[in-house]
Amino acid sequence: MPIVERLLLGPGPSNPYPEATEGLARPLLGHLDPAFLRILDETCDRLRAVWRTDNPLTLPVSGTGSAGMEAAFVNLVGPGDVVVVGVNGLFGERMCDVAARCGAEVVRVDAPWGQPLDPSAVLGAHRSPSIIALVHAETSTGVRNDVHAVARGKGDALLLADCVTSLAGIPVDIDGWGVDVAYSGTQKCIGVAPGLAPFTMGRRAWERRRPKPQSWYLDLGMIGDYTASMASGQVARKYHHTAPVAMVASLHAALGAVLDEGLEAVWARHEANGRALQDGLEKMGLELWAPAGYRLPQLTTVKIPDGVDDASIRRVLLLEYGIEIGAGAGASAGKVWRIGCMGHNARPQTVSLLLAALAEVLGR
Amino acid sequence: MPIVERLLLGPGPSNPYPEATEGLARPLLGHLDPAFLRILDETCDRLRAVWRTDNPLTLPVSGTGSAGMEAAFVNLVGPGDVVVVGVNGLFGERMCDVAARCGAEVVRVDAPWGQPLDPSAVLGAHRSPSIIALVHAETSTGVRNDVHAVARGKGDALLLADCVTSLAGIPVDIDGWGVDVAYSGTQKCIGVAPGLAPFTMGRRAWERRRPKPQSWYLDLGMIGDYTASMASGQVARKYHHTAPVAMVASLHAALGAVLDEGLEAVWARHEANGRALQDGLEKMGLELWAPAGYRLPQLTTVKIPDGVDDASIRRVLLLEYGIEIGAGAGASAGKVWRIGCMGHNARPQTVSLLLAALAEVLGR
Repeated sequence: MPIVERLLLGPGPSNPYPEATEGLARPLLGHLDPAFLRILDETCDRLRAVWRTDNPLTLPVSGTGSAGMEAAFVNLVGPGDVVVVGVNGLFGERMCDVAARCGAEVVRVDAPWGQPLDPSAVLGAHRSPSIIALVHAETSTGVRNDVHAVARGKGDALLLADCVTSLAGIPVDIDGWGVDVAYSGTQKCIGVAPGLAPFTMGRRAWERRRPKPQSWYLDLGMIGDYTASMASGQVARKYHHTAPVAMVASLHAALGAVLDEGLEAVWARHEANGRALQDGLEKMGLELWAPAGYRLPQLTTVKIPDGVDDASIRRVLLLEYGIEIGAGAGASAGKVWRIGCMGHNARPQTVSLLLAALAEVLGR
Repeated sequence: MPIVERLLLGPGPSNPYPEATEGLARPLLGHLDPAFLRILDETCDRLRAVWRTDNPLTLPVSGTGSAGMEAAFVNLVGPGDVVVVGVNGLFGERMCDVAARCGAEVVRVDAPWGQPLDPSAVLGAHRSPSIIALVHAETSTGVRNDVHAVARGKGDALLLADCVTSLAGIPVDIDGWGVDVAYSGTQKCIGVAPGLAPFTMGRRAWERRRPKPQSWYLDLGMIGDYTASMASGQVARKYHHTAPVAMVASLHAALGAVLDEGLEAVWARHEANGRALQDGLEKMGLELWAPAGYRLPQLTTVKIPDGVDDASIRRVLLLEYGIEIGAGAGASAGKVWRIGCMGHNARPQTVSLLLAALAEVLGR
């Protein structure tokens, strides 16, 4: 099959950092090889730096971001546990489904898709929930929810945050904010192919975990005994499953690039390029969907102008320009485009190219 | 970090086929890009050829082989279901754990580690089990179990086979044998990095599946709506999770190499090289652990000679020769080495090198 090349400006995957691609293609190592274990340990250390946490249990879960979501819930939630979920997009909806499959009593707090959650509504939804869960950066709407505000008021509840699209794109501060458990995905701002879920869990959550979760594959006690256990000292290296070594090596390399640039510089780069994209779209006469103050720089939702055919514009961009942008999802399907500016793609060149191509295709 | 290169002759991962590495490093595509969906469809077709099945629901699960195991059980097993599990190694043990977490009443049928299961004992263990499960190629012992014999006598039960180490190494014939559900891993004879679980499920199993399994991530109804649904016609391409596109491209390429060589030729190559390795070990005065007639060519277990230090021999092979072989596992720990000869490594050069290196290190 011929090699096809795309500029991936949809909601993810994004084009990997060159370091990530190089890491992916290195000679494969065994999952118990000391040379690989050094890479794994350093990957966990780098994840701690990117998550801004000292949590010993910080590691890449061996599945995509959604496996990270499932790992968070199955290890903490059992039948009858009250889980408050903030829902203002597809991934909040997904949390409700995942929690319910663990037997949770799910208390939904809805906000309209395209609007942020109201932290006080989330905090006031139940007297004593086991867990309060919300999505930091809603990939389906381009809206940022205020995780920090919810964390400040969580009380005895555990706070669970979906950081799939936020980590390494906008500020995330696990320890500073008091987030108890969080997961991400590699294919967004981290700039690696999809396949791993960076994960972190603090001691408070660990002490309330289910000793034998319904998932064997995502049992963090067993995974931690191989990768990075709660005990801060020596890891047992007890075999659980075969680590996805090539993907871990790729993540290791991309995190190295991110930390070499500096986490705050990476945030600033996402901010600057995302805002340039949004300004350019508005200058073209297009209307942004997410409200000012809650717009994600790394994922822009823009309204499809009246009379413009959603699918045909995306098809022309893809097939003639090699540029992928995303359709809407769920309640935003057919109403907006989702334009990612994540990781390696958060650069002036990609913003300029996208704006130029879109103007040509729309005749503006 | 310096690049380290190894010859991976442990129980997996094995060194990928060169085509797999090339596929892994290709430019990344979006998970809904028509160019990627062609690769995905062709990957599923190639998996059908390698599994020898027409099952529409044949696809790569987005996790390692153990995620394949969990996908098989969570979609088919609920509280109180009777599951007969043949146990003669670590992965039979694991099946019991996974099934129990689904609420199954697990009926174990044990054989000593290092010996094959008795098919009639497995078939006679319960009057009317929902599922009979066994491991085809026990990676922990190097023993082949007779899946075909168990399949012939399964009656109304569903037959579930772990083919992690068998697929694309020794004959597997899903439709010919009457296996209802099976999974594998990419990092053994398929010759790809670890991270995906080739999976197949037949109509009989599909009709008895749980409509809402306890796992959202491994819900085959939802996954099939994106990847390869039970309906043989058009797939809905409904977004579930972001497919691990780089790993799928790598699997696509490796399966192409396997099918270009010819599946029967690939089996013959594993057989010839595995037997050459085993003959060579015996000529060196070493004793094979698995009994003749049930020895896997792709994974050899050989007894550690008296007075020889297990770990130090493996360390010298690894650090001086760049060759990884495996320690024993579970009941075989400290008693045997496990030597893989899988996928791209099932070649005369690797056999000769391993035999030469081992003779030098053992002073034989």
